[in-house]
Order: sequence, then C-alpha cells, then structure tokens
Amino acid sequence: MRIQHLDKNIKMNLLEDLLKRSPNNYGKYEQGVAEILDHVRSEKDAAVFTYTEKFDGAKIDASNIKVTEEEIKEAYELVGEELTGIIRKALFNIRDYHERQRQNSWFESKPNGTMLGQKVTPLQRVGVYVPGGKAAYPSSVLMNIAPAKAAGVDEIVMVTPPGKDGKVTPTTLVAAHEAGADVVYKVGGAQAIAALAYGTESIPKVDKIVGPGNIYVALAKRAVYGHVSIDAIAGPSEILVIADETANPRYVAADLLSQAEHDELASAILVTTSQKLAEKVSEEVDGFLNELSRSEIIRKSLDNYGYILVADTMEEVIDIANEIASEHLEIQTKNPYDIMTRIRNAGAIFIGEYSSEPLGDYFAGPNHVLPTNGTAKFFSPLSVDDFIKKSSIIAYSQEALGAIHTDIEKFAEAEHLTAHANSIKVRFEKK
Amino acid sequence: MRIQHLDKNIKMNLLEDLLKRSPNNYGKYEQGVAEILDHVRSEKDAAVFTYTEKFDGAKIDASNIKVTEEEIKEAYELVGEELTGIIRKALFNIRDYHERQRQNSWFESKPNGTMLGQKVTPLQRVGVYVPGGKAAYPSSVLMNIAPAKAAGVDEIVMVTPPGKDGKVTPTTLVAAHEAGADVVYKVGGAQAIAALAYGTESIPKVDKIVGPGNIYVALAKRAVYGHVSIDAIAGPSEILVIADETANPRYVAADLLSQAEHDELASAILVTTSQKLAEKVSEEVDGFLNELSRSEIIRKSLDNYGYILVADTMEEVIDIANEIASEHLEIQTKNPYDIMTRIRNAGAIFIGEYSSEPLGDYFAGPNHVLPTNGTAKFFSPLSVDDFIKKSSIIAYSQEALGAIHTDIEKFAEAEHLTAHANSIKVRFEKK
Repeated sequence: MRIQHLDKNIKMNLLEDLLKRSPNNYGKYEQGVAEILDHVRSEKDAAVFTYTEKFDGAKIDASNIKVTEEEIKEAYELVGEELTGIIRKALFNIRDYHERQRQNSWFESKPNGTMLGQKVTPLQRVGVYVPGGKAAYPSSVLMNIAPAKAAGVDEIVMVTPPGKDGKVTPTTLVAAHEAGADVVYKVGGAQAIAALAYGTESIPKVDKIVGPGNIYVALAKRAVYGHVSIDAIAGPSEILVIADETANPRYVAADLLSQAEHDELASAILVTTSQKLAEKVSEEVDGFLNELSRSEIIRKSLDNYGYILVADTMEEVIDIANEIASEHLEIQTKNPYDIMTRIRNAGAIFIGEYSSEPLGDYFAGPNHVLPTNGTAKFFSPLSVDDFIKKSSIIAYSQEALGAIHTDIEKFAEAEHLTAHANSIKVRFEKK
Repeated sequence: MRIQHLDKNIKMNLLEDLLKRSPNNYGKYEQGVAEILDHVRSEKDAAVFTYTEKFDGAKIDASNIKVTEEEIKEAYELVGEELTGIIRKALFNIRDYHERQRQNSWFESKPNGTMLGQKVTPLQRVGVYVPGGKAAYPSSVLMNIAPAKAAGVDEIVMVTPPGKDGKVTPTTLVAAHEAGADVVYKVGGAQAIAALAYGTESIPKVDKIVGPGNIYVALAKRAVYGHVSIDAIAGPSEILVIADETANPRYVAADLLSQAEHDELASAILVTTSQKLAEKVSEEVDGFLNELSRSEIIRKSLDNYGYILVADTMEEVIDIANEIASEHLEIQTKNPYDIMTRIRNAGAIFIGEYSSEPLGDYFAGPNHVLPTNGTAKFFSPLSVDDFIKKSSIIAYSQEALGAIHTDIEKFAEAEHLTAHANSIKVRFEKK
C-alpha cells in the first residue's frame, strides 16, 4: 500500500477522492424504474408476476408467492445445525443491544392542569428487502429485522427475489425466521419495492422499507420516499484505522483488508503517527494479499481508495478522522478511550486491538448498517429509532390557557393569522 | 361545510383526495434549480450575489451579506417591546420542552472486558432557512432554532432573503437573535440552499439544512440531500378534530378555520359521533366566515378539503383518524385521554377543549414543524433528534473475543468473506 505524509494537499485530495465514489450516474436507469413502479401501482400482482418471470426467470403467482412453512423447514435442513446455532448466538447479542435503544413516551404536568408530552409509537408494518443469490447475507437479514422487532413493529414483511427454481436462498430464510419476519414474499428488484409501497392483492402496503439492494432497488426506494419512509441508501464500505506505535501491524493490516474485500469502491485507510508502523502494515498487507481468496477485488480497492497516512501529531490524525467521518473507525492506540472522546464523526467506533471490525459485522450486537461516504457527520446507524415515530401531546386547562391567551392572540395577529387568534378568543368571549 | 355520513366509500374518496394535495408537478422547475446549484457550487459568492440581485432585486456583496449588530438593534426597535416580550415567553416554553428531548450517550459493560454503547453527538453546524416578506413567521424561526440549540449544535447559520432595500424582515431578526442564531446571511431561494450545502467564501458549509421555503427552496433541498442532511419537505397544513356530543361547537368551528386559513390546500376535518354537533359546527363555521379577514382562502380550502363526517361509533372515528394520520389532531370528547391512547398516527395531539391548535403553533412548547399528508405514520415532529447523530461503540477484550472467535470466523466464511474471517483469525494464531 502507498504510504504518504499527511499534509493539507493530501487531505484535500483524499476527501475529494472518497466523495467521487458517490454514484451519481444513475439517471439512465431512472426511466426504467419509474415504468416498473407505475406498472405495479396500477396492475398490482399481475405486474409483479410478469416482472418476476422477466427478471428472475421464475414463475410465481398468488398461490406460491408466499414462502411456506414447508420451505422454511427445508431451508433449516440445508443450512444445518452449526450455522443455525451461530446465527442464534449472534441474534441474541443483536437483540440485547437494540432493546437498550428503546425510548419511552414521557410527559410532564403542572398543577394548573397543563400536560405536555411525547408519545412513542412503533411503525405498524415494515418491509425488509433482502437481495438474492450471491449478495444474500444472513447477517444483514438479522441486522435489518432485529431493530424493527425491538421497536415493537406489528408486522415485518420480507421480500427477496427467487432463483429460477422459484426458491429463496436458504440462509436468508433461516435468518428471517429466527429474527422474526412475519411473512416472506418471493419478489425482488424495483417491483418488490413498488409492491411494498403501494400494496398489491398479495402483498400489503408498508410504512417503511429498509434493506440493501442493487441500483434498481436503490432508485425505486428513492422514488417512493415520502409515500413511505425508507432507510438511507448505502454507499461503498469504509474503514479508517487510527493507530500509534503500540499497534500490532498484523492486526491493522488484516482489518484494512477485511473492508477492502467488499468491492472495488471500498475504502481502507490507516492514519498513524508512526512511520515504522506504516511500513510494517504495508508489508503485512502484501503478505496477506497472496493468501486471500478475494485478492483481486482487494488489490483494486486498495489501488483506488487505500491509503496509509503518516501524521506528525495525534491531533492531526483525529482531525482527518472527523473530516472523513468513516463508516467504521478502529482505534488501536495506547489510550483508545481518550481518542474516542475526541471523535465526533463515525458510524461505529471499535476500541482496542481485540475489537476487529468483523466482530461488529456479525456478532457484538450494534447494527452493521452504518452511514457511509461522510454521512456519519449527520446520519446514525440503523436502530430502533428508525422503526418508531413520535407524536407531541398538548393538554391545557382553562386556567392554563387563560393565563396566556392574550399573548397567543397578539402573536397570531402579528403574523396576520386572524383565524388562529379567533380560535383562542372564542374560548374567553363573554357568553 | 358539507356533512357526510362516514362509510367505506367516503373514507376511500377522502384518503385519495387528501393525497392529491401532494405536489408532484414540480418537474418543470427542476432544471432551473439544478443550474442555480451548479453555478453556486462553482462560482460561490459571485453566483450568490448575482442571483440575489436577479431574484430579490437587492445589491449584496461580501461587505454586507452578514446582518450586523446595528441592523439587529434596529430590528428590535421596529418590532417593539410588546411583541419581543411575547416572543421571549413563547421561547421559554419551547426551550423547556425541547430540553426534555435530549438523549444521553450510554454504555453497558461486562466483567470480561466488553463495553458496548451508543455515543450521542450534536451536529456541528446547521443551516436554518427562513422565508422573506409575507411568508416570514417569527414563530417558525423559534421552532427551527430552539431544538438545534437544545441539541447542543455548535453553530447555527441562518439565511433569509433581503428585500429590495437590502434589509431583512425585523421580526425574523428578533426571533433569530432571541433563539440563538450565531449569524444571519441575507440570501434566499435555491442559491441560499446551495451556499449552505457547498459553502462559499462568505457562507460556511453546514451539515444539515432545515426550515420551510417555496418550491425552489424545496427542490434545492431535495437535490442536495445526501451531501448534507435536510428536514422533511412540508406539505399543506391539516387539522382533524375528534368530537362527541359534549364538545363546544363554537370552539370546534373556530379550530377548523384556524387551519383552513393557511392556504387553499389546507385541510380541516371534523369526525364526530353526533349528528347534532355536526350541524351546529357547520352553522358556526358559516357565522365565523363573515367575520374573518382571510375568508376567501378559507372558503376555497373548505370547499376542497373541508369535511364534517358523522360516524356510527367512536371506533370508526379513531380508525379514520389513524388512517388520515393528521398533522394536528384535536380530541374534544368526554374522555379525551382514553381516545389519545388509541391514536397511533398524528403529528401533535391536542387534548380537551382548552387545547386549541394555535396554542401549539405559538406557545405551549412542542414543535409546530410536524409531519403532513399522512406521513405521521412514519415521521415525527421536528425535535432534538434531528440535530444529533449516534455512533456505536464496540470494545472487546482478548478474553471476550476469544470466547466467540470461531463463531465469527465460520459466519464470515458462510458469507464467503474470507478477509473478514482472517481479521479475527490473526488475533488467535500461534505466534
């Protein structure tokens, strides 16, 4: 990996480079996606079945679009006890963490009869999109369903494209069943998003759609936003490791590679105060590259978006970490908690040399759906917050409103909203 | 107002009617907005000054784009002590409510050295858009700035278009200064949104843009979403009143009209179990219409989106209220708290006959920026939550990772992510 001295120019170039990964060349697919959405909106099931045959090569109709108990049983047999057991252990941790994110409704009251509050209500029905085939990650199924369940969502509807044989990836089904999906429909692509957003004879309309997907799925989600809610569109994966001379170069190298293997747009960055560590990590990376199965992808992603940066001070390291606002941030230094307190912007922060990033992808409990591409400056990990919404509660008594009614009337009149003022006035007019 | 018996057909028609208000005919402005965004992104201040002269007829440059202390002082004189005093009283309540929305960072730890947590960080810099001229509402300035301040945002940057004389609406300035805006720039429209999203020589780039605006502002916000965060695009205002035979028809009528006066797309709906109340409210509405200054707007909005619906049972009333998911919901019944517990979907819930909706617009404390057009099914009022973001914290010790390392390795291998598995393995390889 290239080693560079961190200076202002490098920093500006790096930040520009990373933002280039934001895919803006989507326009050419938009028309096609809009047609699918319109068609499913008007023709419902019939359109869903037509597109499933066209894009997935599978014959699906109202009689077999819903995954059966029989199929779930078969999936468990195919997945086997060992992996099912691991999925259960991971799910236990994921549930435990997300249950701690629950928020309470609250109110405060005053002796004059005022009550103000905030009511927390789970979303009623949520749709979870799960990609098919090679892009089917059971860990991702757990991470999308568990926070919805912890939030108390009434009904979780999963959609995933069938293979040509009309079957769904077995690990997806096992993960869905374990995590608590209420129903799984065999439909994918933009047609699945349309079905969830508008409803069809077979598939009920939902309030929110979450889960990763290809470019068609992403564009369809963006198009239905506002009609239903959606999660953030995921960008390419990222890791930034902060390390000093005390870090283990072999661990740092392995962790950089674990993100670089995702795809050619993934970014892996080490920022360190130690030139010696920088060199050793670079050597370890070269060593691992000869052993790893996805080394071709890794080489490309490291060539494009891999950096080892040597900074003069830890302040500069922290500063660039906050600027980049990485999806995953590892801190492998002498006093990692001290550094953590100075981090403003990161999706997930991994502290110390035994907190390798894949621990968070699979097992620790916090969500692995994280803000990418600098959006950790203003977005948060997927959480229970995404599956609840709040309503304000306002109750005033005659006494409480009486004490301030002329103020409200005057404020409304200053804004020329006389019917607003009138609605207060009528309550205090002489009878 | 028309009175109808609530049945299935009425319900379907009503829901369709309300959704029609969603403005989809925006395409024709998109190209123009995109040009402004591109131009400001590349030419920065120069483009901002050109557009301000073109659209606002005001000559603004780097020397006078920032509102001065002198101008703020002048604004206080123009606004006068009475209105300033009312603004301060309202702000006190708004602050008090929003400070209760603050969330804490938290962690949990285990004796094996595991620490998991969630770090809450305020956004660093937020932009607040405030319309100029007639659409300038000081209450809206308070409602957009107060939650950002309560969240602990470092810097609040306000933008608002100048009049031809280069001045900013005085009530806007007073409200901004009271609420705690750090700086106010005289720029409006899509050019203001572009300046906040990309930064110029005069105006710093922000992390999130909030606040209402016209169609150009709304389109510009949508276009920069992802590069920065934005609040929800506001739709036309709505009120739904749930009332039984115990309600005061004069209060109900006045409250319906207070929303109908906003604009011709506003919606005012009464759903009641009492035919008698329905008739009396209709009469009261007619009476008020002759007195109110904005009666022309009110007549149009009532003709289009005003309904009095009589239902057979309170269950049906609650059901349609949850379906409509109104921005504002008033409950004027014998046992309003009992009904409140059954409400799933509403932006703000006003309980009892002295909790008139304008109380919430100006004074009670909860935010008046609320989800519209059915989006209360999945969106929340503007709150402190909009000005914070969270980072997951993951720390495992050697002991804690050692207990599960083979599980993670197997999970990663099941997903064919061998570099993920490797990053765990290297930590337990024989040295």
